[in-house]
Amino acid sequence: MPLSAYLSEFVGTALMLLLGCGVSANNSLRKSKGYGAGWVLISFGWGFAVFLGVTVATKSGANLNPAVTLGIVASGAREFAEGVPVTFGNVVGYIVAQLLGGFVGAFTVWLIYKQQLDDHPEPADKLGVFATGPAIRSWVLNGLCESAGTFVLVFVALAFGEHGPTVGLASLGALPIAFLVTGLIASLGGPTGTALNPARDLMPRLVHQLVPITGKGTSNWGYAWIPIVAPIVGGLLGGIAAGPLL
Amino acid sequence: MPLSAYLSEFVGTALMLLLGCGVSANNSLRKSKGYGAGWVLISFGWGFAVFLGVTVATKSGANLNPAVTLGIVASGAREFAEGVPVTFGNVVGYIVAQLLGGFVGAFTVWLIYKQQLDDHPEPADKLGVFATGPAIRSWVLNGLCESAGTFVLVFVALAFGEHGPTVGLASLGALPIAFLVTGLIASLGGPTGTALNPARDLMPRLVHQLVPITGKGTSNWGYAWIPIVAPIVGGLLGGIAAGPLL
Amino acid sequence: MPLSAYLSEFVGTALMLLLGCGVSANNSLRKSKGYGAGWVLISFGWGFAVFLGVTVATKSGANLNPAVTLGIVASGAREFAEGVPVTFGNVVGYIVAQLLGGFVGAFTVWLIYKQQLDDHPEPADKLGVFATGPAIRSWVLNGLCESAGTFVLVFVALAFGEHGPTVGLASLGALPIAFLVTGLIASLGGPTGTALNPARDLMPRLVHQLVPITGKGTSNWGYAWIPIVAPIVGGLLGGIAAGPLL
Amino acid sequence: MPLSAYLSEFVGTALMLLLGCGVSANNSLRKSKGYGAGWVLISFGWGFAVFLGVTVATKSGANLNPAVTLGIVASGAREFAEGVPVTFGNVVGYIVAQLLGGFVGAFTVWLIYKQQLDDHPEPADKLGVFATGPAIRSWVLNGLCESAGTFVLVFVALAFGEHGPTVGLASLGALPIAFLVTGLIASLGGPTGTALNPARDLMPRLVHQLVPITGKGTSNWGYAWIPIVAPIVGGLLGGIAAGPLL
Repeated sequence: MPLSAYLSEFVGTALMLLLGCGVSANNSLRKSKGYGAGWVLISFGWGFAVFLGVTVATKSGANLNPAVTLGIVASGAREFAEGVPVTFGNVVGYIVAQLLGGFVGAFTVWLIYKQQLDDHPEPADKLGVFATGPAIRSWVLNGLCESAGTFVLVFVALAFGEHGPTVGLASLGALPIAFLVTGLIASLGGPTGTALNPARDLMPRLVHQLVPITGKGTSNWGYAWIPIVAPIVGGLLGGIAAGPLL
Repeated sequence: MPLSAYLSEFVGTALMLLLGCGVSANNSLRKSKGYGAGWVLISFGWGFAVFLGVTVATKSGANLNPAVTLGIVASGAREFAEGVPVTFGNVVGYIVAQLLGGFVGAFTVWLIYKQQLDDHPEPADKLGVFATGPAIRSWVLNGLCESAGTFVLVFVALAFGEHGPTVGLASLGALPIAFLVTGLIASLGGPTGTALNPARDLMPRLVHQLVPITGKGTSNWGYAWIPIVAPIVGGLLGGIAAGPLL
Repeated sequence: MPLSAYLSEFVGTALMLLLGCGVSANNSLRKSKGYGAGWVLISFGWGFAVFLGVTVATKSGANLNPAVTLGIVASGAREFAEGVPVTFGNVVGYIVAQLLGGFVGAFTVWLIYKQQLDDHPEPADKLGVFATGPAIRSWVLNGLCESAGTFVLVFVALAFGEHGPTVGLASLGALPIAFLVTGLIASLGGPTGTALNPARDLMPRLVHQLVPITGKGTSNWGYAWIPIVAPIVGGLLGGIAAGPLL
Repeated sequence: MPLSAYLSEFVGTALMLLLGCGVSANNSLRKSKGYGAGWVLISFGWGFAVFLGVTVATKSGANLNPAVTLGIVASGAREFAEGVPVTFGNVVGYIVAQLLGGFVGAFTVWLIYKQQLDDHPEPADKLGVFATGPAIRSWVLNGLCESAGTFVLVFVALAFGEHGPTVGLASLGALPIAFLVTGLIASLGGPTGTALNPARDLMPRLVHQLVPITGKGTSNWGYAWIPIVAPIVGGLLGGIAAGPLL
């Protein structure tokens, strides 16, 4: 078991969710200094959250996302990172590490924004700090949005890999993935807020369910399966498409 | 026929239009989460849309735009990409692939934002998701804006090429083109919304014409020739100017 | 006379002013699509304007600014670019080229935004498309702001040079200067709008004086000497400081 | 005593605070041209402020922050930069240089924005130009926010170093640290405005205390110890964690 790779996924995902749910909290809660900054802050904030997560998780290839891990499997790659083969055990290990990291990151956001969360009057905004939700509900179209977005995420991330290693670029090599995510949220974030990542939605939603927040509403578990299933479908298709199309 | 290069143009343009019309939809429709985010989101969203399209279309040199293809012809270049010579057949093949890609990208935006498009009350905003239009109509000045913008696009893109290959930079090498587009939309987007690309305007406009959208208005075909002709003129001039001026 | 270097300064400055005054027009005129986008658009728009100008003007070292040219002289450098020695004649040639380029860039903005300029009701906003002006007038403090900003511009630009050549980085090598300018406008743009460049303020102001604009007000020549003299002072000091402090 | 390294810390921190407090002034004071631009400007403005500071302070390794200096000590590193060993004397020298630089940078912001500061009606906004403060007061949670943010700052900055030297990248090598800071402010800036740096908060607060500003309120010294102690704790933990976790 390549524990250091699992640890890498855990730390990277935790950091990504800390910064990602953090920017949502900063934007959405009335006693946050960035309250109402809008979708530009959300898009870049999540982009840089992914940037930082990727930067600290190079040992494991920085998947940070079960849909990416499964997309890499579907692409036929042999290794997640140097010395970490694509095996069933490592797929499970990666996903478990990502889920645990997602929980820790979102839990830390709750701690840091505890007062802002308790103060804010609107339950839907409190949930929005943690989990995504549709602007207009439709299982088919919400799912299509998540699948298409994750397809692009995995397909383009694999294209980045096609361009050769980023050795010598230091952390700059992780900037393209940041702007990929910023672009996806800017462009396809409209209908669902775009999770694009089961760990990004499920674990913060679980944190929202478990922690005490004054005036907290439902965790909207009825929607929770969409940002799990649809990103996985999109990620698998992205991985499959990468071979013939890139 | 270098089918893989045509496929590359198709995939790149489709991805570019998916993200590009996507950011317009996110910004312009009242039930989108990014509603009202403004011109900063539009500028960066289109810039990153181009970034992603370029990243997945390296096999073909990532023109993604008939005006760029014709500008490259005008510049006297011999190849669009390694192994893809500048021939009449390849020019036609590239443009057809770009147009088809543009259609697919815009059609997917219609699917993803279907509910938001149906819900929004203002027909002009629905059209604006797909096609550009003048803030104040004037064939001469609207055309000048599109031509000048595309001149800069092609001229500077050729300057990027002058700086030598980006081998070893991986996908970072596509960031300058992203910021070129962001800058062009930020600066010259005021009068017409700047198509800068016949495929970017014509094909989404055609999608707007063909698909059912509740309360849809005209597709404004009377304006459609401007963002076809003017970018081509600008692109040709940009290609011609690059030799003596760079 | 290295005419190709002068031409390079001319083209680079024209492009920079086209995009730079363009973003001001897009933000400030009510019939522009980016109307009211705000200081984030202004900051990044000018940053990318400089980015593009620098990219096409590598032959001359891309000064694009008399204060930078004089700062380079003050720093004791021997060449503006490979094969272009620092001589009195070249300093004059560079500055003339920059001024002419500034005029052409701003004149083109007038053409492109002609209808928006004619339509807008507020004369001060029309002038603001072209020239800078103080939020609160004070010769000493307005001048200090311009001098301090240009000091930083030249000092940091010379620091960029200290880091070694950007050979192999293609156009990415011009991104730091873009973000330097974006940062300067974001941070020190408050009191005067920060010209930081005599050619950037004087020549667009002259365009404003000469062209017909419906409801045009004064070109405010009483302030015009500040964004000429103060940036030159700041640039000279920045050049002098670079040696001992970097 | 490596005076050139101390000078480097002094100049870098002064430049960082000039731009950083500058963007706060531009955003917060009603007679600034960027008034009300919002948290996107603040986040990127501070990010680019750090970018510029780092760029001019390469001789000393560009700590610019006592919490970073102490975090580097905690990480077990042997040198701050080539030829500057980690010794007690150098730690003291670095911190003194950072504090002096912070004072000079913030003092210059007072000069440049003097009229805007005097004009603005709200004392809390005047203080906010210089020093951070909690949206909702809580020693524990405010401190947690600052500690967590500085932990991420130091931990990720050390990860950047793990990716190998940025030789050959010129100033681009400092962009990751810029986007790290932009991301931290975007995401964790909500509860306290995030100082993340004792020199960034203490010295501008001292400037606010000392200089005359019309209608100035308290400098809120009761809070001042939080953005000193908490970042140091976070920085130390980040340095300690870097070894086993990266």
